[in-house]
Amino acid sequence: MTNNFDDLPQDPEQATRQALCRVVHEAHAQGWCWGTSGNFSVTLDHQPLRLLITQSGRDKRRLTVDDFVVVGRDGRPVVGDTGRPSAETLLHTSIVAATGSGATLHTHSVASTLLSQQFSPQAGFTLSGYEMLKGLEGIETHRAEVFVPSLANAQDMTAFSRTVDALLAERPSLHGFLIAGHGLYTWGANLEQAQRHVEIFEFLFECEARKIGFQPLN
Amino acid sequence: MTNNFDDLPQDPEQATRQALCRVVHEAHAQGWCWGTSGNFSVTLDHQPLRLLITQSGRDKRRLTVDDFVVVGRDGRPVVGDTGRPSAETLLHTSIVAATGSGATLHTHSVASTLLSQQFSPQAGFTLSGYEMLKGLEGIETHRAEVFVPSLANAQDMTAFSRTVDALLAERPSLHGFLIAGHGLYTWGANLEQAQRHVEIFEFLFECEARKIGFQPLN
Amino acid sequence: MTNNFDDLPQDPEQATRQALCRVVHEAHAQGWCWGTSGNFSVTLDHQPLRLLITQSGRDKRRLTVDDFVVVGRDGRPVVGDTGRPSAETLLHTSIVAATGSGATLHTHSVASTLLSQQFSPQAGFTLSGYEMLKGLEGIETHRAEVFVPSLANAQDMTAFSRTVDALLAERPSLHGFLIAGHGLYTWGANLEQAQRHVEIFEFLFECEARKIGFQPLN
Amino acid sequence: MTNNFDDLPQDPEQATRQALCRVVHEAHAQGWCWGTSGNFSVTLDHQPLRLLITQSGRDKRRLTVDDFVVVGRDGRPVVGDTGRPSAETLLHTSIVAATGSGATLHTHSVASTLLSQQFSPQAGFTLSGYEMLKGLEGIETHRAEVFVPSLANAQDMTAFSRTVDALLAERPSLHGFLIAGHGLYTWGANLEQAQRHVEIFEFLFECEARKIGFQPLN
Repeated sequence: MTNNFDDLPQDPEQATRQALCRVVHEAHAQGWCWGTSGNFSVTLDHQPLRLLITQSGRDKRRLTVDDFVVVGRDGRPVVGDTGRPSAETLLHTSIVAATGSGATLHTHSVASTLLSQQFSPQAGFTLSGYEMLKGLEGIETHRAEVFVPSLANAQDMTAFSRTVDALLAERPSLHGFLIAGHGLYTWGANLEQAQRHVEIFEFLFECEARKIGFQPLN
Repeated sequence: MTNNFDDLPQDPEQATRQALCRVVHEAHAQGWCWGTSGNFSVTLDHQPLRLLITQSGRDKRRLTVDDFVVVGRDGRPVVGDTGRPSAETLLHTSIVAATGSGATLHTHSVASTLLSQQFSPQAGFTLSGYEMLKGLEGIETHRAEVFVPSLANAQDMTAFSRTVDALLAERPSLHGFLIAGHGLYTWGANLEQAQRHVEIFEFLFECEARKIGFQPLN
Repeated sequence: MTNNFDDLPQDPEQATRQALCRVVHEAHAQGWCWGTSGNFSVTLDHQPLRLLITQSGRDKRRLTVDDFVVVGRDGRPVVGDTGRPSAETLLHTSIVAATGSGATLHTHSVASTLLSQQFSPQAGFTLSGYEMLKGLEGIETHRAEVFVPSLANAQDMTAFSRTVDALLAERPSLHGFLIAGHGLYTWGANLEQAQRHVEIFEFLFECEARKIGFQPLN
Repeated sequence: MTNNFDDLPQDPEQATRQALCRVVHEAHAQGWCWGTSGNFSVTLDHQPLRLLITQSGRDKRRLTVDDFVVVGRDGRPVVGDTGRPSAETLLHTSIVAATGSGATLHTHSVASTLLSQQFSPQAGFTLSGYEMLKGLEGIETHRAEVFVPSLANAQDMTAFSRTVDALLAERPSLHGFLIAGHGLYTWGANLEQAQRHVEIFEFLFECEARKIGFQPLN
């Protein structure tokens, strides 16, 4: 269940693969990427964009350093890489291009799914009054009002990535967004910060979810 | 608590036993087969049917590669195997015969128990609007409507296996079903897919369960 | 966090101490004996009664094979044992004397605490309609009605042990009972069966607890 | 994820760092200090006060023995220590000065956050009727009434530490307090007792939280 890091070459990209594997295993253990769900990436280069991202359909519980693919801005594998990127890779490249993120994490938790559906009619909700908000980079007080958009879900990722482009152009200070019935995208300057943002959001989502008497939708 | 896989012979059936042990331990860790509940099988051969299945009454937390029995289509141990199969083995063989499944997993979670009782009067419920539905083999969009039957519980497994035969004949595209107050049966082309289906269903069951204000039955 | 079982002498009592340690660690990991709560015993001899039981006030997360004491029917350490038994030891010896249990486990979970308080006015509640009931020794069908008493809590253990004597004399087929605002006592012919009973009860308590809209008491 | 304790020098301060690391890892695993939240300290000397405390902004999941700083009564690093203490260090030193605590732990759980907000208008709430209360040092019966203050959150830690001074002067028998939307401070004569108090409070908070139908605040 754990990678033996010691017997792998310690070149920077391998170290990145190992660190990302660890973060993915930890997310799976929390129930945030069950059933092969979720996509996780680290930006190897910004100019031109080179993104290390989990391959489509891999079991995140058993992800290994070989389960990634390197893609360019168009979401396609770079020359020489035969891995199969997820359809959602384009959302990652849009986020990196708009925010300059060093790591971009997409998780599926029960609380984020419930809140994303609940607040889909209002296109999102605002978190405020929590000390944990200060774990989001740049937030200095629990009185901050952090808006979390909830976008309608879609299966056409090319069109959807343009929705994300527009969202991030309109709201450059976002730390993350939800897709209704789907999950969370968040990011950070580096992998540690992005993982911290996942934990902060999931903690706050669980707080909010417990305040709501959810109703069945169907 | 873990099997030392290295000191066991690596013939295919032993490898299957090891892989299934691992899946069972992981299910127990999630609280899905406490108190010796649950049955887990892998199809060794389809024609004639040979099924590797957990023996009756074993603690799933400490399951070892010796805690399985090989049975035929009639649910009885094959010649030379002295293990004691569970009474529910017949449900496994019915599922394998009807669906061609390579692995069949039966789990008992709190959320599946609650939903199975809640929706027993309507004989089931429909999941829709969740991206996670795409983790069920062949589902391409969150707009899919996935029906989850909830069958009345019974203790006569011979009769019950005929109910399952009829259900699967009527609904060949099912990915799983519930038994009221009892748990989930799901399956897949292989063990990885079947385990993925457990995780997908359990995630969605937890989402649905949190939307419902349950009432005591008694 | 784990005992290294290999470097300890393998006499029967040491093996019992190791097995009980493992069960206690597993209970702590589930959140069933936090903050030094809970008491766990194995019957070494029935005639005269010799009970191996966790010492008072030990952190169950780090329990070692030296954190037990051997007591007699009166709950006092046998000659030569300097350990300090818990005040609740008398409940264990009462249970062993009445039921002949080989292992007796006392846990504190959130769900058992909530249900014990909720059903304290009626002195208990009945579990029925759950397949998991069959994990209680001797129960053959989900239609069984299993009564779980909820006794008023008390601090005088000598008097309280007589309440337990009376309860078990009146209801010899019990598998366990609750103490209001306190926790679960359950037992079994051996340690494996007693641990199974804990898991079965905790699973069913969680099901029942999720069906109830609890109200603050104070 | 675990420290290899064997290859570190066993001087007392190193042993303290190791023990505190372990407690912090365990708190993170419970979800009580996600996203770099939480502060954890052990009192090295009382006269003059020397406090070993987690540095600001460290990932508690991967905390190492080098992630602490030693501070004095004014919350500033002692001569020779270049670590960066958290702004909340002053609350720790106030607590140590007022209570003589040997360890002081500050955690952020979902249940403590919810209760701290819910009972902020009444400035706190009372726990009673739980056997687990006896896990708080000096409490002898479940009938005890344990008041848990909920202070308004603030970002000026110098002013806030005076609020804590006043609270502890007024209520010297407190075992802990909440800050609204923020988390728990608790302490003990030593690290074991302080960790026990965290577990006791978190258990009781989860019980109380499940009794309340929370409402969204915003």
